Amino acid sequence: MIFLDAAATTPVRREVLEAMWPLLSGDFGNPSSHHSLGEAAAAALAGARTATAKAMGCRAGEIIFTSGGTEADNLAVKGIALARRAADPRLDRVVISAVEHPAVEDSARYLARIHGFVVDVVPVDAFGQVTVEALAAVLRPETALVSIMFANNEVGTVQPIARLAGLCRAQGIPFHTDAVQAAGWLPLEAAALGVDALSISGHKLGAPKGNGALFVRGRTRLEPLIHGGGQERGRRSGTENVAGAVALSTALTLAGASGRQPAAAIAALRDTFIAAVLAGVPGGILTGHPTERLPSVASFCFPGTSGESVLLELERRGVICSSGSACAAGSDAPSPVLLALGISPEVAQTAVRFSFDAAITAAELREAAEAVRAAVGSVRSLAQRE
Amino acid sequence: MIFLDAAATTPVRREVLEAMWPLLSGDFGNPSSHHSLGEAAAAALAGARTATAKAMGCRAGEIIFTSGGTEADNLAVKGIALARRAADPRLDRVVISAVEHPAVEDSARYLARIHGFVVDVVPVDAFGQVTVEALAAVLRPETALVSIMFANNEVGTVQPIARLAGLCRAQGIPFHTDAVQAAGWLPLEAAALGVDALSISGHKLGAPKGNGALFVRGRTRLEPLIHGGGQERGRRSGTENVAGAVALSTALTLAGASGRQPAAAIAALRDTFIAAVLAGVPGGILTGHPTERLPSVASFCFPGTSGESVLLELERRGVICSSGSACAAGSDAPSPVLLALGISPEVAQTAVRFSFDAAITAAELREAAEAVRAAVGSVRSLAQRE
Repeated sequence: MIFLDAAATTPVRREVLEAMWPLLSGDFGNPSSHHSLGEAAAAALAGARTATAKAMGCRAGEIIFTSGGTEADNLAVKGIALARRAADPRLDRVVISAVEHPAVEDSARYLARIHGFVVDVVPVDAFGQVTVEALAAVLRPETALVSIMFANNEVGTVQPIARLAGLCRAQGIPFHTDAVQAAGWLPLEAAALGVDALSISGHKLGAPKGNGALFVRGRTRLEPLIHGGGQERGRRSGTENVAGAVALSTALTLAGASGRQPAAAIAALRDTFIAAVLAGVPGGILTGHPTERLPSVASFCFPGTSGESVLLELERRGVICSSGSACAAGSDAPSPVLLALGISPEVAQTAVRFSFDAAITAAELREAAEAVRAAVGSVRSLAQRE
Repeated sequence: MIFLDAAATTPVRREVLEAMWPLLSGDFGNPSSHHSLGEAAAAALAGARTATAKAMGCRAGEIIFTSGGTEADNLAVKGIALARRAADPRLDRVVISAVEHPAVEDSARYLARIHGFVVDVVPVDAFGQVTVEALAAVLRPETALVSIMFANNEVGTVQPIARLAGLCRAQGIPFHTDAVQAAGWLPLEAAALGVDALSISGHKLGAPKGNGALFVRGRTRLEPLIHGGGQERGRRSGTENVAGAVALSTALTLAGASGRQPAAAIAALRDTFIAAVLAGVPGGILTGHPTERLPSVASFCFPGTSGESVLLELERRGVICSSGSACAAGSDAPSPVLLALGISPEVAQTAVRFSFDAAITAAELREAAEAVRAAVGSVRSLAQRE
């Protein structure tokens, strides 16, 4: 089996399991307890926070551990917008891009539906990028928050985050980025990026599901999403998932420790794969940006097929991939992300996404490209016979 | 070491680790993915849901997996109240008891602060119980939700949940109970209890931290707390923590599988321990209800001491316990729960809570009672010398 669905989730890395294990098997204390067991748990949590902060180029106090990327996105979007409007009732608009993950989009829609905010959607170009000009055009004095993802989960397009954040910073508007797909591939250093909030998810990085983190800059005010015992400095209540935090910090450190060189090497493999697929599939279309894209994502439309049929043919040939986001996999509707790029609904329904982790090899991708050629050919010939 | 702080958290049970392990080490799929790896994960999640539902006497579709008890409480209190008010704007009040966990209390306070709800607090008697009469006195036509905990985390008092829920049901008011401490000790069957929502937490039951569940009856409308990809039937978005759900369901099933007999046996050990402590500590006070209390909790005040000093003396003697809730352990303020029982602030600051799991032995509790006698004596004689 060749696993090309790493953007959906990743296997847990052995080093991550080894780092978690003591917290699952022995050191079971509650970090809030004032005894030796509690203190050991608190120390493990503090270590995880320091390591996470180091990987994200921020201070430990700026890291909030969450149950995942979706919760981190919800906390950032709702929490910052609600806190800002509580301080100034005129701030009742939020800006998102047209290609956000549902965790951001539906958080913004919740603000509109329940709290009376207005959601401004900034369009993307045909490659899926938000330009500085497009963002500038939607900013208003009432904008409480801008949330634009770092790298797209369906087409891999990377946004010019530092420039977009800089524009917002110049106008005093907090900027959040969903870096769930970018983490492990692109530099996350918050200071260099100039963002005020940044979300990541453990299970995209080789940690188990159920953990994530939100960076929130310094004194940014935040209405909590989950209220209670006041953990995470009052910003996220609930007994801390110590093993999960250790898993996340270990996975993030490992991803960083492997440096940028593997990312460049993977990008080269990706480009070879893209070229092979386009050579093997007449009429195949690369979706997303040709160069400003995640090293780990190759996404296509194959007109004359259905994406789901191609997936089944590929799985029969030992290649596991996806028609797009796993989070929307239950839906028959064409991807809103692809529509936002100007792709027609008919073509959008032929989308197939291949996403790798750093362990991918050139041989696997050669085999996968050949399987794609055969699978698309098989689906097309079947369609012609019908 | 004798661990008497199981109400704060519990060691992960071996069977739970064994059940989780395949999901951490091999079957890493995303349950939303439409391929064999995803389907295996979805099957594991479905199995966990069925087992959890069985233990809670409800249908699988009525279980929402969360990141813990605090999130489950937040989702129930905010989610039901907001959904009810959205359907009928007159429903702008919520009722909680005076002894709720901060996860419920602060969720209600959030509804007041951000959404304009009024919070009605129903008082408790000197044993910490809410009477049917006291609840009836605060219910109003505008009451959107009642949330009263099943068993208190600081003093162990068990509420007459079926009667309280019955009163609310007769008036058409949804009833939620925080059963985080009750789970594993008291029957949770939702149908028999007549509750509309019930929260539990894995790490109080021998699962790791970071997982919990909310039962929500049938067609009860619920505004999600975490929006996004639409997992958990749209009621809780975010990639499911499959290993966590399997851990929770395994722990809950084990707790139920051990039947009620151990609970009765533990209650007898508890009563022997309470008698020994009260015999050994002149002026010692049992807090909470003398009989309607968790089998696993013995809580006291020891006038003439400070709770923290007694804890330190006990830990020196190998007994790990708590001054009250771990979730409030950072605070110097006297426990609001004890104040609600009519205990003076001075006495409330001498509180010590002992809480066990089912593995506790008579010999351990004899040794602990002797340590309590010695520790309190030591603290008191030191206080007299000062």
